[in-house]
Amino acid sequence: MLPRFYGPDAERPGDIIQLPEEEAGHLTRVLRLKAGAPVCVFNGRGGEFDAVVGAAAKGRVRVRLGAARTAAPEPRVAVTLAQAVLKGDHMDEVVRDAVMMGVAAIQPIVTTRTEASLAALERGRRRERWERIAISSAKQCGRATVPPILEPRVFADVAAALAHLSLPGPGLMFVEPSAANGAQTLAELGVAPPRETTVVIGPEGGWDADEIDRAAAACRLVTLGGRTLRADAMALVALAALYAVWREF
Amino acid sequence: MLPRFYGPDAERPGDIIQLPEEEAGHLTRVLRLKAGAPVCVFNGRGGEFDAVVGAAAKGRVRVRLGAARTAAPEPRVAVTLAQAVLKGDHMDEVVRDAVMMGVAAIQPIVTTRTEASLAALERGRRRERWERIAISSAKQCGRATVPPILEPRVFADVAAALAHLSLPGPGLMFVEPSAANGAQTLAELGVAPPRETTVVIGPEGGWDADEIDRAAAACRLVTLGGRTLRADAMALVALAALYAVWREF
Repeated sequence: MLPRFYGPDAERPGDIIQLPEEEAGHLTRVLRLKAGAPVCVFNGRGGEFDAVVGAAAKGRVRVRLGAARTAAPEPRVAVTLAQAVLKGDHMDEVVRDAVMMGVAAIQPIVTTRTEASLAALERGRRRERWERIAISSAKQCGRATVPPILEPRVFADVAAALAHLSLPGPGLMFVEPSAANGAQTLAELGVAPPRETTVVIGPEGGWDADEIDRAAAACRLVTLGGRTLRADAMALVALAALYAVWREF
Repeated sequence: MLPRFYGPDAERPGDIIQLPEEEAGHLTRVLRLKAGAPVCVFNGRGGEFDAVVGAAAKGRVRVRLGAARTAAPEPRVAVTLAQAVLKGDHMDEVVRDAVMMGVAAIQPIVTTRTEASLAALERGRRRERWERIAISSAKQCGRATVPPILEPRVFADVAAALAHLSLPGPGLMFVEPSAANGAQTLAELGVAPPRETTVVIGPEGGWDADEIDRAAAACRLVTLGGRTLRADAMALVALAALYAVWREF
């Protein structure tokens, strides 16, 4: 398989474009490719091209685009993953996994039981970090689309956005079986594939009762099986289960 | 939630049993519980009990079993996960995830593109390590059943076992879309829930052509979507997708 690089400026066959600095470093320092090497460039918006390395020195790399390639297919259902920020590296892993699975966007949420505040996420430049992880995951899994990482928001704002459909709804909020009376299993829900939806997933400590009440107006509450799933595995399990039910798999 | 401990000797309400050394250490040194503390004990074979700590000192802990508890439900389909041994800690993560998802047994496999040999797994006491991880994952996810880790085998033996039904078959072997002509998507396959099955998952480098040919006689070849899934995420995604199709979720 040709080495793949992210080139947001790639538009048309024949274009000569410069790769972002991080991509140029990967090409020259890690893979040690030289002028003339065949590569593949995707623009993060679904476009993918054969390409040839031109000038390549000191982290500045130009490539000439060749023929457009057929990009890996995107899922038919555009899923926005609204994920409560997890501790340590776990949010990084969820971003990586969700991009691999094919989500259309990722909305980080600060909930009552989330440890980090919006201010701490801002100070730590976490959104920029998740954007780099999204690019890296798209490179690895063969996607030509890099889903945007939306500005982190508190849960109340996300619930309001779902109610007013500024996030795609009705959302599907995943809850522990014990957490909510009105929750249904995926089989009970019998979800037909929507055009788009928001999948809402909580933090390590789960949702608090107020959050579930607030969400119940704008979301459908869903449980998965009888075992307790780890918070950092929940997005991957929920997306795989939904894609299977929607016949994406 | 009561702290949960693995007590393989737990059989009947009223019994006084000793916990395994590792569990005793967890109870006394990590959770610092004393005599009289209420706990919950599961025996790994589906039995779960209220219990009270009796003598607790120096890694030797006795508990008295109270009433039997209703254990978390096991999946209706008994899945044996036949997983090619992955590099580094990734096999540990797959064992942890598969136990959380509810598999009935785990069969580690050495394939053509697996780095470790059976001898290296034996020397490294890897099976014992995976057994400890299975117990730890069952504790965390609320399962009362600890699935066995079967003796690691080379792929040819696993394929033969599937053909002779000494492993539950017909198996479902997951392959890259590009890897095999005869592979079907999960939607094409239209899998009705079997009573039991073996799910076969490959290593980082994928299956070689001989392995796919050999498996095609004993397995159905399955692909999932158009993106490339990481080897260490494949088991979790495949199990979640299958449980969704089988209406376990």
